[in-house]
Amino acid sequence: MTSGDGSLTEELDLFYEEVRRHNSSPLWLQERQTVKTVPFLWRYDDFRPLLMRATELVPVGRQAERRVLVFANPGLEGKQSATSTLLANLQIIMPGEVAPSHRHTASALRLIVEGSGAYTAVQGEKSYMDPGDFVTTPNWTWHDHGHEGQGPMVWLDGLDVPMVMTFEAQFQEQYSEDKQPITKANDASMRLFGAGTLRPTWIHHDSVHSPLINYKFAHVYDVLTTLAKETDGSPFDAITLEYTNPLTGGPALATIGCFAQLLKPGQHTKAHRHTGGTIYHVIEGKGYSVIAGKRFDWGRKDTFVVPSWAWHEHVAEVESVLFVYNDWPVLQPLGLFREEPYTERDGHQEVTETFVAGPA
Amino acid sequence: MTSGDGSLTEELDLFYEEVRRHNSSPLWLQERQTVKTVPFLWRYDDFRPLLMRATELVPVGRQAERRVLVFANPGLEGKQSATSTLLANLQIIMPGEVAPSHRHTASALRLIVEGSGAYTAVQGEKSYMDPGDFVTTPNWTWHDHGHEGQGPMVWLDGLDVPMVMTFEAQFQEQYSEDKQPITKANDASMRLFGAGTLRPTWIHHDSVHSPLINYKFAHVYDVLTTLAKETDGSPFDAITLEYTNPLTGGPALATIGCFAQLLKPGQHTKAHRHTGGTIYHVIEGKGYSVIAGKRFDWGRKDTFVVPSWAWHEHVAEVESVLFVYNDWPVLQPLGLFREEPYTERDGHQEVTETFVAGPA
Amino acid sequence: MTSGDGSLTEELDLFYEEVRRHNSSPLWLQERQTVKTVPFLWRYDDFRPLLMRATELVPVGRQAERRVLVFANPGLEGKQSATSTLLANLQIIMPGEVAPSHRHTASALRLIVEGSGAYTAVQGEKSYMDPGDFVTTPNWTWHDHGHEGQGPMVWLDGLDVPMVMTFEAQFQEQYSEDKQPITKANDASMRLFGAGTLRPTWIHHDSVHSPLINYKFAHVYDVLTTLAKETDGSPFDAITLEYTNPLTGGPALATIGCFAQLLKPGQHTKAHRHTGGTIYHVIEGKGYSVIAGKRFDWGRKDTFVVPSWAWHEHVAEVESVLFVYNDWPVLQPLGLFREEPYTERDGHQEVTETFVAGPA
Amino acid sequence: MTSGDGSLTEELDLFYEEVRRHNSSPLWLQERQTVKTVPFLWRYDDFRPLLMRATELVPVGRQAERRVLVFANPGLEGKQSATSTLLANLQIIMPGEVAPSHRHTASALRLIVEGSGAYTAVQGEKSYMDPGDFVTTPNWTWHDHGHEGQGPMVWLDGLDVPMVMTFEAQFQEQYSEDKQPITKANDASMRLFGAGTLRPTWIHHDSVHSPLINYKFAHVYDVLTTLAKETDGSPFDAITLEYTNPLTGGPALATIGCFAQLLKPGQHTKAHRHTGGTIYHVIEGKGYSVIAGKRFDWGRKDTFVVPSWAWHEHVAEVESVLFVYNDWPVLQPLGLFREEPYTERDGHQEVTETFVAGPA
Repeated sequence: MTSGDGSLTEELDLFYEEVRRHNSSPLWLQERQTVKTVPFLWRYDDFRPLLMRATELVPVGRQAERRVLVFANPGLEGKQSATSTLLANLQIIMPGEVAPSHRHTASALRLIVEGSGAYTAVQGEKSYMDPGDFVTTPNWTWHDHGHEGQGPMVWLDGLDVPMVMTFEAQFQEQYSEDKQPITKANDASMRLFGAGTLRPTWIHHDSVHSPLINYKFAHVYDVLTTLAKETDGSPFDAITLEYTNPLTGGPALATIGCFAQLLKPGQHTKAHRHTGGTIYHVIEGKGYSVIAGKRFDWGRKDTFVVPSWAWHEHVAEVESVLFVYNDWPVLQPLGLFREEPYTERDGHQEVTETFVAGPA
Repeated sequence: MTSGDGSLTEELDLFYEEVRRHNSSPLWLQERQTVKTVPFLWRYDDFRPLLMRATELVPVGRQAERRVLVFANPGLEGKQSATSTLLANLQIIMPGEVAPSHRHTASALRLIVEGSGAYTAVQGEKSYMDPGDFVTTPNWTWHDHGHEGQGPMVWLDGLDVPMVMTFEAQFQEQYSEDKQPITKANDASMRLFGAGTLRPTWIHHDSVHSPLINYKFAHVYDVLTTLAKETDGSPFDAITLEYTNPLTGGPALATIGCFAQLLKPGQHTKAHRHTGGTIYHVIEGKGYSVIAGKRFDWGRKDTFVVPSWAWHEHVAEVESVLFVYNDWPVLQPLGLFREEPYTERDGHQEVTETFVAGPA
Repeated sequence: MTSGDGSLTEELDLFYEEVRRHNSSPLWLQERQTVKTVPFLWRYDDFRPLLMRATELVPVGRQAERRVLVFANPGLEGKQSATSTLLANLQIIMPGEVAPSHRHTASALRLIVEGSGAYTAVQGEKSYMDPGDFVTTPNWTWHDHGHEGQGPMVWLDGLDVPMVMTFEAQFQEQYSEDKQPITKANDASMRLFGAGTLRPTWIHHDSVHSPLINYKFAHVYDVLTTLAKETDGSPFDAITLEYTNPLTGGPALATIGCFAQLLKPGQHTKAHRHTGGTIYHVIEGKGYSVIAGKRFDWGRKDTFVVPSWAWHEHVAEVESVLFVYNDWPVLQPLGLFREEPYTERDGHQEVTETFVAGPA
Repeated sequence: MTSGDGSLTEELDLFYEEVRRHNSSPLWLQERQTVKTVPFLWRYDDFRPLLMRATELVPVGRQAERRVLVFANPGLEGKQSATSTLLANLQIIMPGEVAPSHRHTASALRLIVEGSGAYTAVQGEKSYMDPGDFVTTPNWTWHDHGHEGQGPMVWLDGLDVPMVMTFEAQFQEQYSEDKQPITKANDASMRLFGAGTLRPTWIHHDSVHSPLINYKFAHVYDVLTTLAKETDGSPFDAITLEYTNPLTGGPALATIGCFAQLLKPGQHTKAHRHTGGTIYHVIEGKGYSVIAGKRFDWGRKDTFVVPSWAWHEHVAEVESVLFVYNDWPVLQPLGLFREEPYTERDGHQEVTETFVAGPA
């Protein structure tokens, strides 16, 4: 041991320096992680002009293959993602534009925000998309899209890129031609598997993801409103339906849990919290959510984030339908999912702050 | 050893007698099983008058709690079942009749043959039934039925009673009252789970069977005919859809695989064989099947049996819809399922005999 | 309706006759099943002389391919099986005898009762067998055996033949030659998979049954007695270990649950009952069981049956090890397993009768 | 559109600034990730002196609860972890030291490097540890340790902290007292579950991880060397055994695949690559690995990393046993696992560089 504090400090500094030179670090010096998803909201009213501006300034194919604006959670410095594991991006395409066919190990979803006349093609099958439609382009499936209609078309792109990058398992491949060959009738998967309770016995779909490409909003909305006549659903999540793989009952995508949530006019859910950072997109409606004591007002086509383990509750001013996605399918089998109701104040948080949307 | 054949025979006889007295038997003396499901067909035209006659002769409640005629496969001496593991029975109920609530470990299904206005109640939920509907009353669920409409109502009862009896696992219980309390809205399960691809997240259904009580024929027929515009399905089974549990993708009932099969006008499937004795009921249509080289002509509402490992192929003269059930969900995980295509004669058997339906 | 009881009876008789002629039967006339597994015990002291006598009277190959005495439960008229789904047979082989290689869809097990020097070969691997060893010859695996040692060798054959026959899924095939080629080192599976907690990553064993052929008794006994120093195990089943497939944690055989049970000297288990007819074979020890109120005294190498849903409890006079097998792996996933403790009289039945073993 | 490039650039800059102010970023400006696990090796000869120095300079409890040096992969700037999802740290404890009981959602393993006389206690059970032992402290299990022997004790700590942090699912809790109560006999889990092929039926272990705390190296080494007499195992991974959960056949830990690998003297495996960054620790032996064309010489107690998708092959100069761990249990069910053999040059990479270990 050393004789005085001064020289001990010096010795320690030398020791730490020596450790560092060996590509190592003392665990006891490590500081707690500060990079962490925060609650946030992106207003569509702010982003639509930006998207339109992008169509003017950025020609497709030259600088950008796709015109996509990434929602960058301010808590995740430099990570440029909505939550620590998931992306939420807005993509705009204009009539006549196409995106060349490719595939990647990241799984993706599209939730249509605006417009019609565009299709996504996945593994030889085309599906035309309408607002509210939930479209899957799973892990390693060839996909491309094109816009044959009028006016701009906008959708929300959800991807598990940050998660797949953490695993250093990201692969990407361009198809040999711009468009993959279309080998199936449009929406064939919908007719084969869409009934959900009737399995076509002659088809072998040996995959971890759903065989369905497009879960049409018209159908989802119909199921939601029919149920709304009989039940309020969960006290925490109201009427929430999970988009499933009808062949397994599991999630539509292996890595992303996707849900449609209906809040009735005036419904105020109780607060709870759970692991799994969650992205909400307002398909229709108006209301607010209280997230970790902060009020987030939302309207049609807005997108917001509830971080992992943040208390949250929702209030709908009018009937509202939210599209919701998170990483629960990964967390749950690993024993990393946990959930807790808020038991004080009759289940409702005190609102201590109000989020102000818009530019910094 | 003994000196002569005569005394050896005598010694053997004494030995065998001694073995028998010990409640044992020499394996080498056992003969091959001769009791075996045979192909057979029961005509509805023969049975409807018998059922009507039963309503006149046999008051409900006195001799018979339910008026049910059991299809007794002639190959299964004394077993009085359609196949070695499954029952296929016709039940008739008349307006105003009810069956008291009970439950049993045998799983049951109903395929409605004729009439309307009757309901089945399962675990607090009522569902009214129409021709072609597939209704489940799974293992140990309370169920009862009543007829509030006009005219006779007939359905096919499918049960796994012979299988459950083999396991000596048969339990039965009467409900304390004639009718169980109705605690849910009619057909609530259909609205909650019928979409198949949208799981209600606030409901926990922790069971080996489907949460659905009634798979309505109108919907099934719609899916079948939509698919028929695009495909012929399997060369052996045409367009065959399995009724599934949407929460698992597995069979609607844990012990009975249930299917709807559409044959297009003129469609002639190729022959194959598989383990699992199978019962076919003609919901609609007209045609014939060749089973083990024998021709079985069938029409609307007839019921026939394809035994385990018998070659079979189907020919539809007009568009035909068959309801099909067997014990595959049990066979498959045990490694007892096997299947083989008929490769000779371009996949079609030689017809060497024609089955003559009707009374012996 | 008819005018008098006499003529009604006559009409009914005619009607029932008419129904029968249509290969049908009224459900309401059916009587309850009377064929049912009963508790029973076969003493080895009675059977050893019979087996030895068989070796003198019945040459292998002439009348009998194998000298096997079947335990025929007296409750199962004509069925000649120990329980409704399982066989328990004693097989004797003499030095120099071999059994030609074959395979069948029935799964089989061997529990060695007496002797040594004989081997079983399964799928190209040989294993020599000693008393207490549990040997598997699963569904559709090639197997044969031979006796290269001295003196008679006896084992208990357990098979699921009655179950497989109920499913009409029985297939059998002789190997092209008497002996299958030996392609692996003796007991290779034991070294590869016997550690149980260390999976050899370069082997793909894609099957519903265990890759292990022989679970040596010396090891099992060692585990049992080590545990016995610390615990009494279950109040109902004492220290009972299930033989498992180390690749899945599931049963060694897909259709038969197999267990080793140790009862300490003086241990008296509490009574319970469960579905699943169960066969007990006494590897070592002496004691008695009370089954449905009847006392069955047992000693070394005896075999007895506890029927489905019969109350049972065991008493060991000295340390006893039982080999136990039943059909639980089939019952459990089908929702047909149930279990109940005996709550009266401090968990012990009143003994109202004593079973007398030996010839009728 | 704008008239000149100059003003376009300016407009674009303004646009990008505007996007950024909205907490967003254009996808087309994003650069490829450069932070990526690189192959690396940490020599024990370098680290043992550092660890000993730490025991002199850093009193336990004052600055550091545990004296742990973290292996910081130089490719993962600032992340201070061995791979993108896993930690590999060296921990030293001195006689008499204890670590207070706590639990966390991160799963941890210990591979004992040096010394004896220390124990780990997990959920009320203690296990003393020897070199080569693989010890599990799974997700949310209480654990603590103490050193009752002589001399320093060193182990490798493997943890999934980076993965759990990515999911923002990290929870940690201190036990109310320094030591949790010991409620079980030492190594009770080993006697209950260690046989692997014999499941104790009276224990319910309802968890995603193994019930075993300590997989003793003496046993593992015995199994490895027994197998080595008969096989070379896989051409790529030699004789590699996975530590499994005997109740499921799955991985010992839900999130970390753990393996023991034996290379025979002179064995040279063929190169392959797969997703899943992998950590190798040399329990015994001497040799080298070629990773992405670079030669890494290793000896006893060294630790090295093979990044996801890097070609790698191993050469043993003497019999060598490696402890190996990675994140395969997470990758595989998500469809993110892929594997590829190196087909050129007879399966062996060209060595273009040699890694020089030691301080920078």
